[in-house]
Amino acid sequence: MKKIFAINAGSSSLKFQLLEMPTEIVITKGIFERIGSSEAEFTLNYNTVKKHEILPLSNHQEAVDHLLEVLVTEGIIKTLTEIEGIGHRVAHGGEQFQDSAVINDSILKTIESLNHLAPSHNPVNVIGIKAFQSKLPDTVSVAVFDTAFHHTIRPEAYMYPIPFKYYEKYNIRKYGFHGTSHKYVYETLLKILNKESGEDRVVTCHLGNGASVCAIDSNGHSVNTSMGFTPSAGLMMGTRSGDIDPSIIPFLMEREKLNSKEILDLLNKSSGVLGVSGLSNDLRDIKSAAENNDERAKLALNMYANRVADTISAYVSHLGGIEALVFTAGVGENSSMIRSLVCKRLAFLNLKIDDWNNKNNETFLETDDSAVKVAVIPTNEEVVIARDVVRLGF
Amino acid sequence: MKKIFAINAGSSSLKFQLLEMPTEIVITKGIFERIGSSEAEFTLNYNTVKKHEILPLSNHQEAVDHLLEVLVTEGIIKTLTEIEGIGHRVAHGGEQFQDSAVINDSILKTIESLNHLAPSHNPVNVIGIKAFQSKLPDTVSVAVFDTAFHHTIRPEAYMYPIPFKYYEKYNIRKYGFHGTSHKYVYETLLKILNKESGEDRVVTCHLGNGASVCAIDSNGHSVNTSMGFTPSAGLMMGTRSGDIDPSIIPFLMEREKLNSKEILDLLNKSSGVLGVSGLSNDLRDIKSAAENNDERAKLALNMYANRVADTISAYVSHLGGIEALVFTAGVGENSSMIRSLVCKRLAFLNLKIDDWNNKNNETFLETDDSAVKVAVIPTNEEVVIARDVVRLGF
Repeated sequence: MKKIFAINAGSSSLKFQLLEMPTEIVITKGIFERIGSSEAEFTLNYNTVKKHEILPLSNHQEAVDHLLEVLVTEGIIKTLTEIEGIGHRVAHGGEQFQDSAVINDSILKTIESLNHLAPSHNPVNVIGIKAFQSKLPDTVSVAVFDTAFHHTIRPEAYMYPIPFKYYEKYNIRKYGFHGTSHKYVYETLLKILNKESGEDRVVTCHLGNGASVCAIDSNGHSVNTSMGFTPSAGLMMGTRSGDIDPSIIPFLMEREKLNSKEILDLLNKSSGVLGVSGLSNDLRDIKSAAENNDERAKLALNMYANRVADTISAYVSHLGGIEALVFTAGVGENSSMIRSLVCKRLAFLNLKIDDWNNKNNETFLETDDSAVKVAVIPTNEEVVIARDVVRLGF
Repeated sequence: MKKIFAINAGSSSLKFQLLEMPTEIVITKGIFERIGSSEAEFTLNYNTVKKHEILPLSNHQEAVDHLLEVLVTEGIIKTLTEIEGIGHRVAHGGEQFQDSAVINDSILKTIESLNHLAPSHNPVNVIGIKAFQSKLPDTVSVAVFDTAFHHTIRPEAYMYPIPFKYYEKYNIRKYGFHGTSHKYVYETLLKILNKESGEDRVVTCHLGNGASVCAIDSNGHSVNTSMGFTPSAGLMMGTRSGDIDPSIIPFLMEREKLNSKEILDLLNKSSGVLGVSGLSNDLRDIKSAAENNDERAKLALNMYANRVADTISAYVSHLGGIEALVFTAGVGENSSMIRSLVCKRLAFLNLKIDDWNNKNNETFLETDDSAVKVAVIPTNEEVVIARDVVRLGF
């Protein structure tokens, strides 16, 4: 048995899970929020205990120091040496990382060299890695890239129809994200169905506040995904636009006198479900409003579902047909209404879901005569991270 | 019998056809190019005669004056009063024009009020209208909008996932273009099949240097199309990117120090097939290069075909299935290779085409056991314009 940390560092947050491997049992999990403030928040769940603290934390290092101290004082571990491995979620692996990687100085430099591709994510991921390294210098640590699962996408699908030189100069291409999630639900599906990779073609829908669809061929390879060079592309999301007519961007920049940062904020933080509804980025709020006949809430729901269905349909064509469709993440796991709207649009595939199964978030939603299986599988990125630490670190 | 002009004015060009209606026989047709230069070019086809002149033309008015004079001196018409109607292609009808419209002062003002939506097209369309009005003030003229056929698209498909206020403030929404072409090939298909509108669901692909796909429901209504707020959206085109990750735009503007006009030029004039191949915007050149094993030419072809197939698949899902697929315009009518690549990707619909039919540009390409008809129908926007003059002008 090994105790493995799965770490996800954000700009002012640090999410963690300590897992026992290979049982995949969660020993403890929690989150630091508002790191950098005098009123940072620390939440820790351990067995039935939920610890909640407000404390000053000036940086990620202080959060990590505090976490490791608490683990011992709370008796969750006896000594830090019990922690045998640490897996770090890293947003962007560029073209360099086709799999997770054991972290050393050269790997860390390569990750930093990709900062321009994920300026708001990779630098903080590196801060998280260094904070753990300073306390646990001898513990093996592994970087798990959100892009790596999509390394099998072919140039026809990853290149953009812009001058080729920008691929050479800036590495502008589709990378895709949510890779650990798409991989996890795909592998879980195969396990439930008791199948090997090499049988089914699957489309996986990770619908959270960020959202993407992935086409997985019968070799288990991602062959297309809807996020692109950045996570702004593809589907309509909670606050992100996804794909729009590109000419709208310079049009709005000129009319509204917006600079690059401001238009990116507009497209990433004020658009999507929030922008259309004017109410919320949370589809639960939008559903309530729609039930009260709010026209813009209804519009946002239909737009959201149609874009998911459009993308699934394109990927079914890419795969030449599918055997299964999977929903995961906040919306995918919980919104029977979105699943229902999406599946209605897929009736032409002879895909049919059972209303009762759908309303009750059953694992399989399809009717007996559906040509396609439709599954709801809760995602678990931390387990993928811990598995990769065990697979590569020892 | 009526002689009707169909006019298409560009920034430095004026295309015309004089048709006899309702027979739809072309009496004469031609084009002025490089208007505004001392070496403008005038080409006129009349029966077996092809007239070609180089002459100074400082503006569209001089081109129209010259055209009308030549029609009489060449004996094509005896007097200008023989011209009973003039139809003008107008790029953008905004939300105001759901059909073609007989032009009067108020209509002309409304067209001008839409200039901001099509700054490089509507102003020159108006110049063309005024040039004919000054010589033929009493002749009925009709504006035929490239957007009008798409007025039946519902908000779920025409709204963008950006803050709602930009729809209210600037009318940012999907309008779609190539409406006269999509309408023409759809109506021609029904005529060939001897069917009424109300039977078939059809996807039409206008693949020229500009390109768009249109989903037409069994009421004959456009319910979705791939061009958007502007003609830059949707498919990869000869020199236009179509949809890309929106974040690429501010990224490139910042790195390459481009202003709004320069990024629009990049996306509209240096992207698409030209940008990826680095060779040409003409798919005939790209096909030759690909046959000589040019990797980027092959990439451009596959990207082009995949994006068409992705969009068709999304629209099949939107329509709940289709009975027919139509190809038209330069590439659609002539490139058996693009049609073949696209149709291969649609095999999951049990859509099959016959190689011989395809190579010979037959009207129908599908095999006997194909679930979907696949037609090649040459477009004819001028006939739609002339028909609308007759329908509305008398």
